[in-house]
Amino acid sequence: MSEKRNYQVIIIGGGPAGLTAGIYTSRASLDTLLLERELVGGQIANVDHLENFPGFPEGIGGFDLAQLMQKQAEKYGVNILYGEARGVTVKDKSVILVTTSEGDFEAKAVIITGAAKRRKLGVPGEAEYTGKGVSYCATCDGPLFRDQPVAIAGGGNSAITEALHLTRFASKVTVIHRRDQLRATAILQQRAFAEPKIEFRWNSTIEQVEGDDFVKRLRLNDVKTGAKSVLEITGLFVSLGFEPDTAFLKGILKLDEQGYIVTNNEMETNVPGIYAAGDTRSKMARQVITAAGDGATAAMSAERYISEHA
Amino acid sequence: MSEKRNYQVIIIGGGPAGLTAGIYTSRASLDTLLLERELVGGQIANVDHLENFPGFPEGIGGFDLAQLMQKQAEKYGVNILYGEARGVTVKDKSVILVTTSEGDFEAKAVIITGAAKRRKLGVPGEAEYTGKGVSYCATCDGPLFRDQPVAIAGGGNSAITEALHLTRFASKVTVIHRRDQLRATAILQQRAFAEPKIEFRWNSTIEQVEGDDFVKRLRLNDVKTGAKSVLEITGLFVSLGFEPDTAFLKGILKLDEQGYIVTNNEMETNVPGIYAAGDTRSKMARQVITAAGDGATAAMSAERYISEHA
Repeated sequence: MSEKRNYQVIIIGGGPAGLTAGIYTSRASLDTLLLERELVGGQIANVDHLENFPGFPEGIGGFDLAQLMQKQAEKYGVNILYGEARGVTVKDKSVILVTTSEGDFEAKAVIITGAAKRRKLGVPGEAEYTGKGVSYCATCDGPLFRDQPVAIAGGGNSAITEALHLTRFASKVTVIHRRDQLRATAILQQRAFAEPKIEFRWNSTIEQVEGDDFVKRLRLNDVKTGAKSVLEITGLFVSLGFEPDTAFLKGILKLDEQGYIVTNNEMETNVPGIYAAGDTRSKMARQVITAAGDGATAAMSAERYISEHA
Repeated sequence: MSEKRNYQVIIIGGGPAGLTAGIYTSRASLDTLLLERELVGGQIANVDHLENFPGFPEGIGGFDLAQLMQKQAEKYGVNILYGEARGVTVKDKSVILVTTSEGDFEAKAVIITGAAKRRKLGVPGEAEYTGKGVSYCATCDGPLFRDQPVAIAGGGNSAITEALHLTRFASKVTVIHRRDQLRATAILQQRAFAEPKIEFRWNSTIEQVEGDDFVKRLRLNDVKTGAKSVLEITGLFVSLGFEPDTAFLKGILKLDEQGYIVTNNEMETNVPGIYAAGDTRSKMARQVITAAGDGATAAMSAERYISEHA
């Protein structure tokens, strides 16, 4: 990496949103730096097999798709730097300062992606069986569990929406929730209670995920009585929501109640020259294809902004 | 095609937005009918080579990408019917009636895509040289014209934005406009006038596109003096805007001034159960990847609506 500190565009995050934004800005001949703190690909790098990214009828591995996108972005000239963004500040009306673990950088426009991650259970066996029965996306992996018993951890809107989604495939869906009532909206609760395939384990936490090559069972704990039990399932969907990692943007960008960045349809934040795309912004659908679409829109908005203000 | 008339979801339009919506609704086991009036793939079916659809670093033909998406949607059970939608009406709060050239159909949710097309010049040589120098997307094809003289037809915001974009590659960009002033915003005009690579041909129309294997020149007409001239270029970008084909939705859905469907971030229109995705909705970025992202979001919104109202 050269010592170059000034770019036209800085993209924070190298998942599908950031890589697609990079394909667009670099093809537009905008000098682009992409910052990634871990692994290019972001959350998809660990996804075994994606069936719903359009253009791949046989499906594709998340790592493979990430590599293809990276190759495409680099082909058009994106500079990738491994480092963590720590702050974004507007220096004057046409310069945005990005402070990182690798020093300070300046750009005319900044596209923020990747600053959100799915919450995990944090119990033994969870990491080991991820992609082998443990999933964080019912929309992605639900159809793989046809006629099989599955469990879902969570009690919010997305957990219950996903439980209802899973009833289209699974033989039984057990909702495991640590409280004695759901946080989901009344209408979703009503639908879930009326659905014969859905059962509930109230006041329960998962202590361990067990199996052989694939998940076979969960060890549960009743938080009120301390009673232990075993639930036989072949799939566990963890739906504890996302954790936006946007603390470093507080006071700079408008965030929603949960900490997601608020944007309009054009991916513009409340600060001119700063855009957000993908899971990090406030919205419902958090899919690879929607992140990529967001990235392209953000890049085109950034390009227009630079054309008008450079 | 069976005589089945009731579906859970009807998707109007078989371009990238409609096909991606179909992949999502059918994978969610929602019984889905997709209506296409011409050719599956929509506008991309005629695109020679797409360089900016993420996941294809070597690029891919538009027709090939459309076929892959169609295969993927059909794999999960989408029913494709060739026919034209003529009307969408809310029959009662949980049934939407879609009238088509092939008779009437009913669904719980409807996703409208594909009801917009790029305006064409309508002159001799335009169709012949499409993909051989004539392009309708500067973002897509601009980088192919490095160090070459190109022309752009149009005078609105998108034409001038595209002209500025093309200066990153082309040796010269001639804006051909039928009036003596631009419709673009002041700031874009100012930038264009200051850009040494941009020249203007005012009061001019293109009468013919000529070349051999590829475009070589344009025959121009001065609409004030009637004087004829020849402009040597290797690329012509037609930027006359899109033509939303939404007359059949007037009075049902909220449209913007130009006739595009107004949606929120979740692709919801003003009518519950009716969604819009892709070029047909009111927004700036009209790219294959953004259309596909829209389609996935619309499908997830439709699924949630059906879960809550079925």
